[in-house]
Amino acid sequence: MTLRSKLMAAAALLSFSFASAQAVAEETYTLTLAETWGPNYPILGDTNRSLKSMVEKMSEGRLKIRIDSSNKHKAPFGIFDMVKAGQYDLGHTASYYYKGKIPNSMFFTTVPFGMTAPEQYAWFYYDEGFELAQKVYGEHNMLSFPGGNTGVQMGGWFRDEIESLEDLKGLKMRTPGFAGEVMSDIGVAVTNIPPGELFTALERGTIDALEWVGPALDLPMGFHQIADYYYAGWQEPSAELQWLVNKDTWNKLPEDLQEVLRVAMRTAAYDMYIQTMHMSGEAWSTIKEDYPNVKFRTFPDEVIEALRSSTEKLLGQMAEKDPLSREIIESQRDYLQQIRPWTNISDRAYLNNSVIE
Amino acid sequence: MTLRSKLMAAAALLSFSFASAQAVAEETYTLTLAETWGPNYPILGDTNRSLKSMVEKMSEGRLKIRIDSSNKHKAPFGIFDMVKAGQYDLGHTASYYYKGKIPNSMFFTTVPFGMTAPEQYAWFYYDEGFELAQKVYGEHNMLSFPGGNTGVQMGGWFRDEIESLEDLKGLKMRTPGFAGEVMSDIGVAVTNIPPGELFTALERGTIDALEWVGPALDLPMGFHQIADYYYAGWQEPSAELQWLVNKDTWNKLPEDLQEVLRVAMRTAAYDMYIQTMHMSGEAWSTIKEDYPNVKFRTFPDEVIEALRSSTEKLLGQMAEKDPLSREIIESQRDYLQQIRPWTNISDRAYLNNSVIE
Repeated sequence: MTLRSKLMAAAALLSFSFASAQAVAEETYTLTLAETWGPNYPILGDTNRSLKSMVEKMSEGRLKIRIDSSNKHKAPFGIFDMVKAGQYDLGHTASYYYKGKIPNSMFFTTVPFGMTAPEQYAWFYYDEGFELAQKVYGEHNMLSFPGGNTGVQMGGWFRDEIESLEDLKGLKMRTPGFAGEVMSDIGVAVTNIPPGELFTALERGTIDALEWVGPALDLPMGFHQIADYYYAGWQEPSAELQWLVNKDTWNKLPEDLQEVLRVAMRTAAYDMYIQTMHMSGEAWSTIKEDYPNVKFRTFPDEVIEALRSSTEKLLGQMAEKDPLSREIIESQRDYLQQIRPWTNISDRAYLNNSVIE
Repeated sequence: MTLRSKLMAAAALLSFSFASAQAVAEETYTLTLAETWGPNYPILGDTNRSLKSMVEKMSEGRLKIRIDSSNKHKAPFGIFDMVKAGQYDLGHTASYYYKGKIPNSMFFTTVPFGMTAPEQYAWFYYDEGFELAQKVYGEHNMLSFPGGNTGVQMGGWFRDEIESLEDLKGLKMRTPGFAGEVMSDIGVAVTNIPPGELFTALERGTIDALEWVGPALDLPMGFHQIADYYYAGWQEPSAELQWLVNKDTWNKLPEDLQEVLRVAMRTAAYDMYIQTMHMSGEAWSTIKEDYPNVKFRTFPDEVIEALRSSTEKLLGQMAEKDPLSREIIESQRDYLQQIRPWTNISDRAYLNNSVIE
């Protein structure tokens, strides 16, 4: 073999090895993510920024995420359609926004008188929840993953105290979605008002009450300045957001990057639950200190009973109409019957036994 | 340039690129992990297997973990020393096992009448907890990360009902650690008995009561067969395990693998909290169904008050002895004062309002 042919052979070998090593090192993916929220939205938007950071660091830049907020894509409630069609690879939204399109999507966010956040995560990850969510979203070419939990949402701000079921009849209240249907069923005059007009509507008496989220997101809205009564929640004990992933996108990712994305979503979702808790603690502490007019109340028993009975009736109607809705409702109900007695003798007993006001 | 020198230059160039690309693709790390638990230990051991699986999949095998259980390393309570010395890269244990060596390690597990699991995660990740843990472990060449939470632990199994503080005086009970010191302070005859002899000791009356964990880990021990009274917890509202990481190990990992390890630990820790909740729900449901003799009880108010007052006294003594203990105790107390009022109007009010027995 001449020197020339030896060198040619060496170069060919090196070239081959170099190309395959380079392929592993350099193949990168940039996924687009559409979020329902506006730019720099606190907590909900933080969750996507945290997802992006974890994914990009863990993959050393092989997997990148580009986030578009609603000012960019102009379709805050169009996330479902855009991810289904592959216009975006990922979406961050709440499942119950799509109840009009697919009624059984509602159950993956929260249900009145349903599970708390840890109970619902247990149902999702260790019982049937995750599988049922894929059944619903799989038909639409998407995977669905938990996307962060707000914890127990408050029952809302009321200008006057509610001392009986009668006090709620005809009361003008902004409360959207399924909780609105339940409120309407017990006689509340439910109205829908855009978020930007809520403060003025409450201040001028266009509405008597409204429900938003909880202290962390309520404080910046200023409702505590014009309503004295802050009621305990019943309607959204664990509102979970979701990440939707286009199935074609998921399938084209190599296994290691699928795992990077899955684990980062799981961590970011749990983190949002803890971050909301932290920020609600801070905000409630601020409200109590600066606005002694604000009084915490729980609804009278007869109101709770009426709300619970209307919830059962409306869930029953949903189960009648759709077999998959029935399957999900029954799975959640059975799980709650199993886990809540444990929550009662652990968390509830502990909190009742070690009261710090 | 001759053909020969052209080829030499090409080969040199290719060789250089190949070497650096290969370095990225092939550099692997195998970390050793010593766990306090025996092989295949439920829940606590599952958490390490889950960590290993996530890390290896996400890194495509570049970061591997080899787990040694206590049957292998023979030092279940020597994890601290072994990771400090670099005999193991990682350890999975509970911080309060090392109270004898470093008293302020105790606070990162749990404290009687302290924070619940979500409250404590909020303190760890969004307030001062994480930083304080590094202050304690940093002096020993280690990083400390949350390693999974058992949620509220039960107050224990009692053969007779406790109706007054008097009933506890002289009662022979197995309850280790700080809770044991508190129990001893209010007059309980605290004894320590190896886990394998607990059932027989309770059955034969060598002890009158014992505290273990909660339904998921108590059920296999069989205590419900010989004790009728299961008491609500006060002593460990959120026992968090920990991963210890040797600092030299951490520093030699490239940034992407540090992030892979950090995120996998964070997810696995949260998951353990949810898995314990799920399994305790199942186990409590089984106990209730198969053993109608078992009655859930909460301690009388005067017992709770005595326990709380002794806890305060003993924490005060710890604060006196060590400035860093004082700093941690005050940080936790301040945080609890801020967050618990929110837990009260959210989770506690919701659980009290929507009772499912």
